[in-house]
Amino acid sequence: MIPLLSINQATTRPYALTDTARASSAAGVRHLGLWLEPVAELGAAETVRLLDETGIRATSMSRTGFVADKSGAALHSALDDVRRAIELSAAVGAPTLSFIAGGLAPGDRDLRAGAGRVRDALEVLAPEARAAGVRLQLEPLHPLFATSRSVVTTVRQALGIIEGLPVESVGILVDAYATFWDADLHDALLAAGERIAGYQVNDFVLPLPAEDHMLGRLLPGEGGIDLDAITASVIQAGYTDPIEVEVFHEQLWALPLETIIERTVRTFTTAVVAPITARTEVPV
Amino acid sequence: MIPLLSINQATTRPYALTDTARASSAAGVRHLGLWLEPVAELGAAETVRLLDETGIRATSMSRTGFVADKSGAALHSALDDVRRAIELSAAVGAPTLSFIAGGLAPGDRDLRAGAGRVRDALEVLAPEARAAGVRLQLEPLHPLFATSRSVVTTVRQALGIIEGLPVESVGILVDAYATFWDADLHDALLAAGERIAGYQVNDFVLPLPAEDHMLGRLLPGEGGIDLDAITASVIQAGYTDPIEVEVFHEQLWALPLETIIERTVRTFTTAVVAPITARTEVPV
Repeated sequence: MIPLLSINQATTRPYALTDTARASSAAGVRHLGLWLEPVAELGAAETVRLLDETGIRATSMSRTGFVADKSGAALHSALDDVRRAIELSAAVGAPTLSFIAGGLAPGDRDLRAGAGRVRDALEVLAPEARAAGVRLQLEPLHPLFATSRSVVTTVRQALGIIEGLPVESVGILVDAYATFWDADLHDALLAAGERIAGYQVNDFVLPLPAEDHMLGRLLPGEGGIDLDAITASVIQAGYTDPIEVEVFHEQLWALPLETIIERTVRTFTTAVVAPITARTEVPV
Repeated sequence: MIPLLSINQATTRPYALTDTARASSAAGVRHLGLWLEPVAELGAAETVRLLDETGIRATSMSRTGFVADKSGAALHSALDDVRRAIELSAAVGAPTLSFIAGGLAPGDRDLRAGAGRVRDALEVLAPEARAAGVRLQLEPLHPLFATSRSVVTTVRQALGIIEGLPVESVGILVDAYATFWDADLHDALLAAGERIAGYQVNDFVLPLPAEDHMLGRLLPGEGGIDLDAITASVIQAGYTDPIEVEVFHEQLWALPLETIIERTVRTFTTAVVAPITARTEVPV
């Protein structure tokens, strides 16, 4: 199996969706991971036209959720945001919608209760996602962000949270940066199987940027992650969809759009495609 | 059970061991976690006299290990360092010696192989630790440091690595900052049982210091960790030894020694002792 590249829009964040789609298409890229804000700005109909025109298929929509710290009116409003995100995803043909758990409110230290609120929200939303033909993908984030952005920090934990929810409407998003450190990752991915709704690659390095710890991700192969091993596990688990490169990095964003795309294609080829296709065993 | 405080020397790092021991004793503290370098500087015999004079018992010695990235002569030398650390621990009556796995060499991305090297080293060292009457305690560090300082990042993983080694000579050190984010922590601690050789408390906050990400730890109760829940799990697992406060923080270190100790005693009392003793069920 030759892994297919999808460029997540975060990787070209400073550039307009129209420009990213056209430049990606010109570089031979056939898949994009979309973000809600630029799609909403361009409009659903115009986005569909753009994807048609450029021959690009959306692989996912980022991102919604952030319910772990909410109840009452705030939760109600957050769930409505998710519903609008489901609608927009469906309107532009994005098959999956990334769902971030959210952190805890100031003074709250109960991660387990937060995870319970994530489960509750997904139970409510699953039928609505299903009706819209969109799959919610719960994304564990790096443990560094457990209190601030996502009480869900491992694939194993995410699987527990979505257990019993319909597999066609709720899966998980595996992000290499978020999960690579986990000694349980390989086993958890095999246990996940068809729950793997998406897979994003990038790379890890220290130190983190001082201003925003989220912005330290490198392109595939530029850091310390054994991407080959993780990709092999994801494929062994049965995943066959395109793989997104999702990088947040100020220095990358400062480059011209065509350069970002060229580097994305190149690093994906050397750090993801080449090692996997070089494996002698045929990945199932 | 009323938890007993031990002050880890890292918490008063800028101050001499002699001063820390005397000031701790004056504040009614009866236990210290020692560090190799200041003990070596003072000398074993003088350290024993100091502990005698101040009525203080050593609860642990920090820290040795860093073998995950080593082989050949470098490994040989690292193992000799551990042996000297075992000897010094025994000489001053420190019952446990903290063992840090180590990160990976530049270009190496194989965390699993690194963990294998940690296991191999502990197999060699366990009988020597036993002969000296010192217990090695493998400490999982926060996943942020998986590549740079410790390929061992969870209690569950640490238990797997030391499985089958004699429980009296190899245990684990549970650090709240390193492990609090883990949804599996409670179950892993109960599975650990008498493998828990030490327990350190501190607290978590973002952002991390830009210069050194290690130095962001707060005093107990000052951050986002549910210390009460973790302490309860540790006690439920059977742990009855003193609990160390181990904080690395430049702002804390800038304070006068007596102030650091006073704040340590106070925060330990409010964030660890009070919630545990207020629990209605009697911890086993």
